[in-house]
Amino acid sequence: MQINLAIDAMGGDLGPRTNIAGVLLALLQDPLLSVTLLGNKQQLQTLLLQHHLSSEFADRIHLLASNDTIGMDEAPASVLRSRKNSSMHLAVKQVAEGRCQGVVSGGNTGALMLISRYYLGMLPGVERPAISTAIPTYKGRTYLLDLGANIDCQPEHLLQFALMGSVMVKRIEGKVRPSVALLNVGHEAIKGNSLVKATAQLLEGHPSVNYFGYIEGNEVFSGEVDLVVCDGFTGNIALKTSEGLARYLSGQIQDLFHKNLYSRLVGLMARPLLHKLKQQMDPVRYNGGSFLGLQGCVVKSHGNADAKGFSYAITRAATEARQGLADQLQLSMQKLNSPQK
Amino acid sequence: MQINLAIDAMGGDLGPRTNIAGVLLALLQDPLLSVTLLGNKQQLQTLLLQHHLSSEFADRIHLLASNDTIGMDEAPASVLRSRKNSSMHLAVKQVAEGRCQGVVSGGNTGALMLISRYYLGMLPGVERPAISTAIPTYKGRTYLLDLGANIDCQPEHLLQFALMGSVMVKRIEGKVRPSVALLNVGHEAIKGNSLVKATAQLLEGHPSVNYFGYIEGNEVFSGEVDLVVCDGFTGNIALKTSEGLARYLSGQIQDLFHKNLYSRLVGLMARPLLHKLKQQMDPVRYNGGSFLGLQGCVVKSHGNADAKGFSYAITRAATEARQGLADQLQLSMQKLNSPQK
Repeated sequence: MQINLAIDAMGGDLGPRTNIAGVLLALLQDPLLSVTLLGNKQQLQTLLLQHHLSSEFADRIHLLASNDTIGMDEAPASVLRSRKNSSMHLAVKQVAEGRCQGVVSGGNTGALMLISRYYLGMLPGVERPAISTAIPTYKGRTYLLDLGANIDCQPEHLLQFALMGSVMVKRIEGKVRPSVALLNVGHEAIKGNSLVKATAQLLEGHPSVNYFGYIEGNEVFSGEVDLVVCDGFTGNIALKTSEGLARYLSGQIQDLFHKNLYSRLVGLMARPLLHKLKQQMDPVRYNGGSFLGLQGCVVKSHGNADAKGFSYAITRAATEARQGLADQLQLSMQKLNSPQK
Repeated sequence: MQINLAIDAMGGDLGPRTNIAGVLLALLQDPLLSVTLLGNKQQLQTLLLQHHLSSEFADRIHLLASNDTIGMDEAPASVLRSRKNSSMHLAVKQVAEGRCQGVVSGGNTGALMLISRYYLGMLPGVERPAISTAIPTYKGRTYLLDLGANIDCQPEHLLQFALMGSVMVKRIEGKVRPSVALLNVGHEAIKGNSLVKATAQLLEGHPSVNYFGYIEGNEVFSGEVDLVVCDGFTGNIALKTSEGLARYLSGQIQDLFHKNLYSRLVGLMARPLLHKLKQQMDPVRYNGGSFLGLQGCVVKSHGNADAKGFSYAITRAATEARQGLADQLQLSMQKLNSPQK
């Protein structure tokens, strides 16, 4: 199925050069994909020329000019109304006006969220998008949400996350009844803060959630469940602590194989293995934070994703758009809000 | 300074054999340490005999009989009053009655907490002990608290953690003005849940806290600050997620070096390096969760700590006892509760 995605080509820490390289990787892998790049037209044209693209390939890339880029540290509220010609604004607008089926940006997360809500609107009953990403586990991948969009949560919000996450895993991973766990400090019913305990009561026996029960932090990587639900504060801390630890350990490994002549020699021999290990430890391996709860497909790429990472986020958006994830979420939220018989 | 510690020799997943080995390691390293072991006297005697100890060494080990062990999964409230002859009860009582200067157990955390509160009592103004442990960072080690004792927290609790943690780092690490950060989802003042924002107002300009500001999850491992404060729910999730990731990556490394003949060969050559790496990734490297806020010294060893890990917890308790940490905490909490001039 043909799909056209809007790409904020200026977003992310590494800038348009990396974004363009990521776009080309994604286009190579997906012959039915085309993209609309938003950004400094001259700069993007120069970068594209360096790749000596065939005309057939170049035809799948459309450029739209924007001479304004929202910075990574700008206050989201201040850029929402004042920067309507920024690459991020224009990229999201492509989806709102039906010219693209999804948008990808590596830029300012808070700004992307506000701008997406403004142009696309929320699903009925959802206040702000939840952010979800996949993490590697022993058994494949497990999705975690929310990762920071919803800081002070009520039990009803966590129920929404469980429902939206279930629909997502069903559509994207093809699981029939995805299992859902609540992140907690223990397994017993008496364990946890008041939010978790109240949410467990909503999830137990809910007809649309295959509720597994509580899991603890160390079990997230076991792959025991398909989806782990938590408030955005906890999810953000859990994900970022993991990223920090992975980076710390990656550095330790590098140091270890550079200490003396022997370790350098072993390091040289182990190079292909260490390269593979580094990839496995890379937190952006499953790059792409999906915004769930919007009337449209928005994927946030990690700010410091490389070209490969950026291409993953694009592929992720293409899959969500093809699967009609936003429409499916709308149906499931309508069902939740309509009175039960 | 001579110190005598009570050891719950029956606690932990690996049982008395591992605990005894850990005790002997700690005694070897600390000639002024003696221990009182609580547990099945015959079993402990048999295990000790296997080590062929010199009489001088054996004189530093006292045995006290207890024929009851509290299981790792028993409900804390139910064992508090009904199991007064258990090894954990009797070990904590040694401290309460002044025969030992501290206690170490690898058993049921919740039970150890309730029993410690019951026999030792809390410091004035502290409701339940906070648990703190050190984590490895680029610059040495950083302490994190609370790790799960206080689930639903108020800002005043987090202020207490900051004060108690500061006293601990000052006494144990010898830092003059330990820096204290609040764990949050961003650096800006507007970021965070209501608990974190209200706590920041208490910490800013507090005369007894060297407040650094907010840090994010990935920065915990940077070593930028001496102490990271959070509620027990968040701290537990952050620590356990890190443990889970470290274990997952450790497994990935092992798999990688066992895949084929080449990788096995490299693995053989890299063995000393990999062994060192495994130690560095080991979450129990800085084993020993200190219970802060009690009128006495209690250290919880990780349930699955090996002999070396258990010896770290004992050494930790000896240091805290020698430094008079509990008394210092009492002074600092009195100061907090007395009216400011």
